[in-house]
Amino acid sequence: MPKVATQMPLSVVALDRRAETPLFRQIYDSLRTAILQQRLAPGFKLPSSRELAVELKVSRNTVTAAFDQLAAEGYLVSRTGAGTFVSDAVPDEFQQPPKSARPPSAAPDETDRELSRRGKIISRTAAIFEYGSRVVRPFNPCLPNIQEFPYRIWARLAARRLNRPNRSLQGYGDPAGYEPLRREIAVYLGAARAVRCEPRQIIIVSGAQQALDLALRLLTDPGDAVWIEEPGNFGTRAAVTAAGARIVPVPVDEEGLDVEAGAALDARARLVCVTPSHQYPLGVTMALKRRIELLKWANRTGSWILEDDYDSEYRYGSRPVASLQGLDARGGRVIYIGTFSKVLSPALRLGYLVVPPPLIDSFTTAKAILDRHSPIFEQMILADFFAEGHFARHIRRMRELYAERRELLKAAVRAAFGETVEIMPSEAGLHLTILLGDKSDDLAIARRAAELGINLEPLSALYTEEKNKKNGLVLGFASFSETEIREGAEKLAAVCREIQSSGVSARP
Amino acid sequence: MPKVATQMPLSVVALDRRAETPLFRQIYDSLRTAILQQRLAPGFKLPSSRELAVELKVSRNTVTAAFDQLAAEGYLVSRTGAGTFVSDAVPDEFQQPPKSARPPSAAPDETDRELSRRGKIISRTAAIFEYGSRVVRPFNPCLPNIQEFPYRIWARLAARRLNRPNRSLQGYGDPAGYEPLRREIAVYLGAARAVRCEPRQIIIVSGAQQALDLALRLLTDPGDAVWIEEPGNFGTRAAVTAAGARIVPVPVDEEGLDVEAGAALDARARLVCVTPSHQYPLGVTMALKRRIELLKWANRTGSWILEDDYDSEYRYGSRPVASLQGLDARGGRVIYIGTFSKVLSPALRLGYLVVPPPLIDSFTTAKAILDRHSPIFEQMILADFFAEGHFARHIRRMRELYAERRELLKAAVRAAFGETVEIMPSEAGLHLTILLGDKSDDLAIARRAAELGINLEPLSALYTEEKNKKNGLVLGFASFSETEIREGAEKLAAVCREIQSSGVSARP
Repeated sequence: MPKVATQMPLSVVALDRRAETPLFRQIYDSLRTAILQQRLAPGFKLPSSRELAVELKVSRNTVTAAFDQLAAEGYLVSRTGAGTFVSDAVPDEFQQPPKSARPPSAAPDETDRELSRRGKIISRTAAIFEYGSRVVRPFNPCLPNIQEFPYRIWARLAARRLNRPNRSLQGYGDPAGYEPLRREIAVYLGAARAVRCEPRQIIIVSGAQQALDLALRLLTDPGDAVWIEEPGNFGTRAAVTAAGARIVPVPVDEEGLDVEAGAALDARARLVCVTPSHQYPLGVTMALKRRIELLKWANRTGSWILEDDYDSEYRYGSRPVASLQGLDARGGRVIYIGTFSKVLSPALRLGYLVVPPPLIDSFTTAKAILDRHSPIFEQMILADFFAEGHFARHIRRMRELYAERRELLKAAVRAAFGETVEIMPSEAGLHLTILLGDKSDDLAIARRAAELGINLEPLSALYTEEKNKKNGLVLGFASFSETEIREGAEKLAAVCREIQSSGVSARP
Repeated sequence: MPKVATQMPLSVVALDRRAETPLFRQIYDSLRTAILQQRLAPGFKLPSSRELAVELKVSRNTVTAAFDQLAAEGYLVSRTGAGTFVSDAVPDEFQQPPKSARPPSAAPDETDRELSRRGKIISRTAAIFEYGSRVVRPFNPCLPNIQEFPYRIWARLAARRLNRPNRSLQGYGDPAGYEPLRREIAVYLGAARAVRCEPRQIIIVSGAQQALDLALRLLTDPGDAVWIEEPGNFGTRAAVTAAGARIVPVPVDEEGLDVEAGAALDARARLVCVTPSHQYPLGVTMALKRRIELLKWANRTGSWILEDDYDSEYRYGSRPVASLQGLDARGGRVIYIGTFSKVLSPALRLGYLVVPPPLIDSFTTAKAILDRHSPIFEQMILADFFAEGHFARHIRRMRELYAERRELLKAAVRAAFGETVEIMPSEAGLHLTILLGDKSDDLAIARRAAELGINLEPLSALYTEEKNKKNGLVLGFASFSETEIREGAEKLAAVCREIQSSGVSARP
């Protein structure tokens, strides 16, 4: 070890006696940085702890604590009778400061080179999420009424659970979820959605997005064909893309997913993502004939059906339509996905899968590998919320409110737009879709509206293929007041006129 | 449509007037089932609603409601002047009841055929999780002290948030997490772990398991080589396996991961999973020399390092060792993983990643695709828990308690086993690892101990390669009382003697 004779510059250790960081830690930090930056070279002999303590006007213990820590981490070595030295285990090359003071640049190309192929595909789905659903303002189409989240009841249930805690639930939980909640969901689904299931078939997940990701990872390989609805929702397309599957966009007409068209496009697709109760975004309900066609096709080809029943709780005209899962008498081809994001709040991050019995173990294992399990506390409160009847009451109350707001939005759109637009017929859910003419440019409208504080999903962005695209506006109504709805519709109509007259509408 | 002349058997509709299900729903259910089971064939003419109402002794509206619903779903069709008929859109073939009354059998082979190749790999990692960490009893090695979870404080913080709710937080949140929590974590990590980061580099996830899954999906492709520690923890091996990566088990010695050995096994591995602060399960701290070797290698080869700092908050002898991330002066090769499972509770499902700036966008997108974001409510409470100083206090209090229990476990093991076993030196964390002789069989011991109410991880199960396996017991102490620890150690010693003398120990 080369001896370096120079004395340690006092400036190496800068102490701030008013700082919260303990003095020993400040000494440790200063010395460590100096060593890493080679201001103190390997082999440099440090002053003794006594000398340094006098110099820095601190107790000797403070210096010793810092030295001990640095020695424990290998920065310093003590040799009996000789003193304390900077270790030469810190190689020269490594001690160079980073080339630039700034963190490495985030140039997208450079980042891309660092991601795996799979990582690049996942990373690029960011574009799919472009029209963020996060801002709470008219007409965000993805929200329930967040003003009406039942805080009072929730607070009471939370307090009860926290004041009389069951400590055995603070360990790792069942990956499939909190058992009492699974029982409540199974009963609810049987009664309200005609889903045939036992509690053991329910897998609690963190919302529909995780349900999709989980199912796609278990049931598809990269390159497998997957039918998605054309148009369909962002999240599904992103999940299918991220899973490395090959997207087969299957047209949706007034009877829902066109199964025959799908079979013509790719008869051997491994999996189908579908929203039969209330198609997103068009709002149609899948006809019984089509449902049976789809089930027959899936049973014949051995394909899987992911039934995303995201907002079926809210049906205004007729009563809820029974699930596709319940119709699958042969059994075992449908995986049903439900979420509490549209009934209670997306902030909860709770949803569920209903899986055929042969898949229970695989889904449970996969959930454990993804994130062990969903948080227990929220599951407990939600189970209590069900058990005490709040869930059913909340849905009933919201259904009335939403029916009213839906009519308000319809009327506001008619008043603001006149007969120039078509409101897609829809009997359910939390949004309405408005068709614009071919000469409109819904992307430009969405961008301009966002500047004016109006949030919406441009219909054309929900298509996969250019040739299928239709212009339209997907508008949510659940969370907004009468005034917000009326004024929003007026602003939106003005934006449409502005874009139309400026001729921005030319779609390539 | 063929007319079927037979009259509807009354038994088709069975009403239970005491049931909670409304009568119209009971009628709907009965008819729907009868149609699906072909007891009412396509084209069958139903009695009029008036006739059926008289027959069933219900109001006519009740029958009409059921008929309307069935018509809306396509089971019935009405023809003006002719009456109501079972639709022939329900094809014969489909109406067959399932072949067996039981759900499809869950024979593993059959299930396997239905999963994708990727799904099969994921599903089979179940075996890795065999020694479940879920039961809360001595000596579960994966738990903090769940008796000491700060319920009182948590309840107060929760009540405050729920009683004065910020409703704008009930929508979808930032996929990267709740900003105030990210700020708190960044400050904590800088001070306590010498991690260099800004809040924007923190991505909140649902625990270390999701952090691993996320990083592996973004940074590796199927078939890529990934170094894992040999021995190492179950969750890491499962995540790497599920990502389709090729596992390269790199030996751990008293200085931590043997970087040279790793480079000899696979010099171009794409990613390394490592626990430098407190190796799981052996308990060693990675030496500075090795840390620098690893960083140099990663900077040279462009490999990624996943630093899993799962329980570094608890260090008993020396002070906390600085993170590998903070040592990476060149910057950008280390992704740091932290979790609140060991500080507070696994039931919370909260953890975080610290990612280099160029990867922030990709990780944020990937988190959005995995599950949108982690639950907001728990993130808010945790942010308050930090802001009010409870976090630091809780760690200090637990550190004292754990230091005590650690000594209790050491003493209990010595008393029960004498000098026949070696306790691995370890200065940190929530577990101790005991080495048994080569002639022991830790798997048999773990199985027998489980029957007697003792939970542990057999060391040999934590190795990937047969030839590297050592026998030992990984024992947690955090959650168990003095009596539980003493009696547990005695039982365990008895089990070891029993297994040894029965000669079950022969490992092939």
